[in-house]
Formats: sequence, C-alpha cells, structure tokens
Amino acid sequence: MAKPIISKPNSPGRHPMVDLVLTTFDWVPDMPRGYVRDIRVRWALEEAGLPYRVEGVPFGDRNAEHFAHQPFGQVPWLTDGDISIFESGAILLHVGERSGALMPADAQGRSEVIEWLFAALNSVEAASLPWSLFKFLGDTAQTPGRQHLDEFLRARLKHMEAVLAGREWLAGAFSVADILMADVLRLVDRFDGLAQHPACRDYVVRATARPSFVKAHADQMAHFAAAD
Amino acid sequence: MAKPIISKPNSPGRHPMVDLVLTTFDWVPDMPRGYVRDIRVRWALEEAGLPYRVEGVPFGDRNAEHFAHQPFGQVPWLTDGDISIFESGAILLHVGERSGALMPADAQGRSEVIEWLFAALNSVEAASLPWSLFKFLGDTAQTPGRQHLDEFLRARLKHMEAVLAGREWLAGAFSVADILMADVLRLVDRFDGLAQHPACRDYVVRATARPSFVKAHADQMAHFAAAD
Repeated sequence: MAKPIISKPNSPGRHPMVDLVLTTFDWVPDMPRGYVRDIRVRWALEEAGLPYRVEGVPFGDRNAEHFAHQPFGQVPWLTDGDISIFESGAILLHVGERSGALMPADAQGRSEVIEWLFAALNSVEAASLPWSLFKFLGDTAQTPGRQHLDEFLRARLKHMEAVLAGREWLAGAFSVADILMADVLRLVDRFDGLAQHPACRDYVVRATARPSFVKAHADQMAHFAAAD
Repeated sequence: MAKPIISKPNSPGRHPMVDLVLTTFDWVPDMPRGYVRDIRVRWALEEAGLPYRVEGVPFGDRNAEHFAHQPFGQVPWLTDGDISIFESGAILLHVGERSGALMPADAQGRSEVIEWLFAALNSVEAASLPWSLFKFLGDTAQTPGRQHLDEFLRARLKHMEAVLAGREWLAGAFSVADILMADVLRLVDRFDGLAQHPACRDYVVRATARPSFVKAHADQMAHFAAAD
C-alpha cells in the first residue's frame, strides 16, 4: 500500500531513515489547485531528496484529530516521527534543518535564510494575500482601505524588485527561503501582479523551472484529480 | 554615552558577553506608538535578560544603509556581533535560541514554539493586519472583499479562542511565540476586535501584565517622546 504514495526524490541528498508524512486535503476545488500550501512542502522535500508519503484528510468535514494537528483546520502538516508540525514556514524551516541541502549550517548563512523565510510570509505574503483575495473575488471597488492594500503590495514588490535585480537567489545558494518567496510571488503573478516587476517575474520563472517544483506541482494536481 | 541606552534586564537569565543592538525609527507618529514592531524585540530581550542597546534611524529619510539592513525600509533589525537580522519573527527566533529562556532546547518543544511563532504571523496577523488597516482608515464600505477579510479574521479568532481557552501559554511555558501572538492580538484588541473572544482577551491581558512587556512598552514610548 505504501508504494504508490512514496515519492522518489529527484535530487541528490542525504537519505537517512525517515518517516516523513505530509498531510493535505483529499480534494480541493479547481481554483486553488496548484496553489495549495502543501506544494511548498512537496517542493522542499523533493529538493532535499527526503523520501515522504502523502496522506489526505477530508476537505469538507474536519474532525478533532485534524484540529489537533492544525489548530486552524487548514493544511498542510508534516509528521516526522513523533513530531507533528503545522505552518508551511515552520515545516520548511524543519526540512531545511533536517536535510542540510536547503539551508547552510553556519550562523550567518542560516540567519539569512531564516530572515528571508519570514520575509516571504510576513513582508510579502502579508501584502499579497489580501490583494489576491480581492482579485479572486473580482471586487474592484476602490475604497480607501482597498487603495491602501494595493499600495502596500506595490511598495513591497518595488523593494523585492530591487533585491532580485541583483541576485539569483535570496541568500546565496537556493534555499527554503526561495521556495517560500517564489511560491508567494507565483500567486501574485497568477493575477498578473508582476507585470511591472520583471526581476520578480524572472525569479518566479527561474524557481519554478526547477525539476523539483515541476514534480511537486504535477504530484499535487494528480493527487487532487484522483479524487474528482 | 552608552549608559542611558543600555537596558537593565529585569528578569533572570544568562548574561554572556553580548553586543546586541536593536535599531528602530528615531520617531514615529502618535498612532503607531506602543505598536511599532521593535516592541516585540524589546519585550523578548527583557524576558531573556539579555543586555542590549537601542539605536534610531530616520523615519523620514531612509538611506542605502537602512535598506542594506532591512530591504523593505522598515524596522526593527537586530545586530548580534557580525550578524544583522530583520523580520520580527526571525529576530525573536534568534533571541529564543540565544537565551534559552524563551524556547525549550528539546526537539519537540522547540518545534512547537516555532510553529506557533509562524502561526502568530502567518495565520493570525495575516488576517488581522488588513482588518486593522480598514479600521485604522475608518473605511466601512462592505464590499465582497472586505466582508471576506472580516470573515477571515473571525475564523482565525474562533480557532485561537478554542486554543487559548485550554492553555495559559501556547507551547507549555511562556515563549517567544507568546510574545508574538500576544502582540498581534493586542492590535486586534485596540480596535475592539476581541469583544467576542474572552480567552483571547484574557491572554493579551495576562501577557501584557508581565513586567518585561510593561518595561518594553514604557521604553518605546519614552524613546519616541524624546524625539518630539
């Protein structure tokens, strides 16, 4: 039974005896497919070359066990032996520390990856998430709050553009921070929000061209399609 | 010169030879005072009992050196010897690992603190920040996007209420995750958003009654008042 759901890592890395299980929904509507946050974790696990299994929990009926693993009733969560972790940022940090392939071990390099990991979520996604929500809903009313949210994202992208114009990856080598930042910017790009930010767009193209992303994305699409 | 700005830690902890410098704005308008993100860092440093200095950078004219430390032109950042860290979440994680007083060393306990650290930012503040922006601007237009944002926060608070009804602190003992979560919920409370969530409100009261928060808050207010 385990065989069809054990992913074959497509990149080199340490292969310790692991018992990593990624839990996501068994099914989601078409709109979020390809963008559900388990893709960040799949991508990181593929890059790290860590074997893992994927399990599904009901999208419609979230029970007490689900909330015990994820207190907001969301996905994903990752179990690693006795440890169960929610929040994509925390999971990526764990994978980075677990594999060594996605985060340097020295204090300076590690610190840079961690600050960009938080920046992807708290400086960029904090602005892109509400913006994309209005886009998703087709809400075009230009109220003061909405204008402020749009300006919030524009300001953050302007600064990211300056950063990414000068470097290939955020913290030296490709890291878990790039997985998170590229995934965050990918959703902005979906609603054509990177048209004026070519360095950000090129970064998304560069990151998502990696075989591990391609596999993670295809696997997620196949996972949800199997439940249709 | 150093004396007036070296904080006297008011809680026990290890006192290694540290060279921690917290940088914040030299001045901010009245509205954000008491809520600027350096308060999270001050609070954590006070709890950890780590001596630190506070330096100010211009609020109005942010130069290249500012952007070298904080690519979005924001504050705070913390320097620890040769390492400079931005993002309040990354800084708190660093302080937690540095002091030992605000994060357990065992893998399970550490993991719990880290997931809640991310949850405070990415599950709760991601919802509370846009909500508070509309409140701050006095924007009351009930567009579909706005209604969705309000519902987003309500859902997150509902789950936080269930969590906090059953525990004093998020991950066993008081930790950096509580500093971040309480600070995030404090801004919701400012706009009366916790009226229907007594466990969340009690948690904010409990956390902000700690002497380290009281000192951090008073120090921040005094820092900005000195520049008026």
